[in-house]
Amino acid sequence: MRLHSLDELRDLIEDSLAELALSDDLGRLEQALRYTLESGGKRIRPVLCLAVAEAAGGTVQSALPVATALELTHTFSLVHDDLPGLDDDDLRRGRPSAHVAFGEGVAVLAGDALLAEAFRLVASDTRPEPARELSAAVLGMIGGQYRDITGDDADLEALHRLKTGRLLAAAVGLGLWAADVPAEEQGAWRAFGDELGLLFQVVDDVLDGDGYVERIGAEAARELADTAAERARSRLDELGADTSVLQELVDQLAVRTS
Amino acid sequence: MRLHSLDELRDLIEDSLAELALSDDLGRLEQALRYTLESGGKRIRPVLCLAVAEAAGGTVQSALPVATALELTHTFSLVHDDLPGLDDDDLRRGRPSAHVAFGEGVAVLAGDALLAEAFRLVASDTRPEPARELSAAVLGMIGGQYRDITGDDADLEALHRLKTGRLLAAAVGLGLWAADVPAEEQGAWRAFGDELGLLFQVVDDVLDGDGYVERIGAEAARELADTAAERARSRLDELGADTSVLQELVDQLAVRTS
Repeated sequence: MRLHSLDELRDLIEDSLAELALSDDLGRLEQALRYTLESGGKRIRPVLCLAVAEAAGGTVQSALPVATALELTHTFSLVHDDLPGLDDDDLRRGRPSAHVAFGEGVAVLAGDALLAEAFRLVASDTRPEPARELSAAVLGMIGGQYRDITGDDADLEALHRLKTGRLLAAAVGLGLWAADVPAEEQGAWRAFGDELGLLFQVVDDVLDGDGYVERIGAEAARELADTAAERARSRLDELGADTSVLQELVDQLAVRTS
Repeated sequence: MRLHSLDELRDLIEDSLAELALSDDLGRLEQALRYTLESGGKRIRPVLCLAVAEAAGGTVQSALPVATALELTHTFSLVHDDLPGLDDDDLRRGRPSAHVAFGEGVAVLAGDALLAEAFRLVASDTRPEPARELSAAVLGMIGGQYRDITGDDADLEALHRLKTGRLLAAAVGLGLWAADVPAEEQGAWRAFGDELGLLFQVVDDVLDGDGYVERIGAEAARELADTAAERARSRLDELGADTSVLQELVDQLAVRTS
């Protein structure tokens, strides 16, 4: 079976988001959700989820609902993090943030609704594990963001493992559940996810000039990213599966410039 | 089997909330969640859930996780609704609102975490129905609150059916799932829940002097509440179960003064 390329997976996610039926109960609040979902991110989490599902022997079709839930969850966190009481960012990917475009109250509700829609999607699975995976990851993200805004970040690594690492780890986990990989066989895949999470965060800090760069310097951070990428590739090699698309994702994340 | 009284059910909920293990990942954000949960509400939704579960042949033990999730969800909605961008209420049950006590950013995150903890609790069930019931109800609540803050409330009944009715209906539904009542036998119980939701809302409006009172006058609103209570009691009589505790709950809701 030919694996889908990263571009094909991204297109599948874009289609899924565009066609996603939101709850009728939301009324015109739907416009705010659509606005935030159409902002053209890289869709790294859902693409990772689909690629893991396919590499682990599943189908992208079975993983699409949970992959879509990951992007809704990521978008929920961006909408709330941008609020004046948190990071106070008026721009998101070159467009007015949700609270600038729709007002603070609507932005709070839009974020809430994105999270609730994400849970609705994972609950469409007949097994409880996807909903458990997502709820635990969301609590980790929130805990990380709390540490970030309160300066309660004595341990920078712990902060990032929570704030960005947990949802990336959940992307791997949700892909594995979608591929029906039993819990006892998920360890090696999840170890790959941990390395990928570190790679993602260190590259983020290199691009922004903060976090790891402030702590260990730009050169050491760049080296740490290379090491993490190398370890992620090794983890993939050990899996005994066709991980070519995931290898390509590692390559892209290692050299990304935005 | 003797049914638990309303007071006993309320005590069970208080104990469950006090002993609830929140995610370690939340760190010190836990303090804000505890603060909002300790504010001494009437616990109507979880009590309703437990009473329905027991009347329908289940145990309160099996229903406690989902009942607790209902109170977390209700508290999430209060914390976010009180925010300056929404209802801008500085007091909640005589104490400073979460954003006054902890700041706006922390209040947003505390509300998010309450919702995620609620989903974690319903996902502890091995069946998908509880998570589906809760996520659909939350989307309804959010849609109702959106109509409320934007004045998009041409249809006041639709607004209230969403904003308060959906979570009360979910309290009945989650109690039924906990008691293993099959979907095809839930109709009569859910019809009771709908009448109870109307009763709750109309009494709310009578106490606040708005909503139904503004639309049909105080006397007609009082009559509508009496009619809804009467119909709720009739629905219970038709169920062929020991609904004495639920009858008492209807009586309490009909004459409540706060």
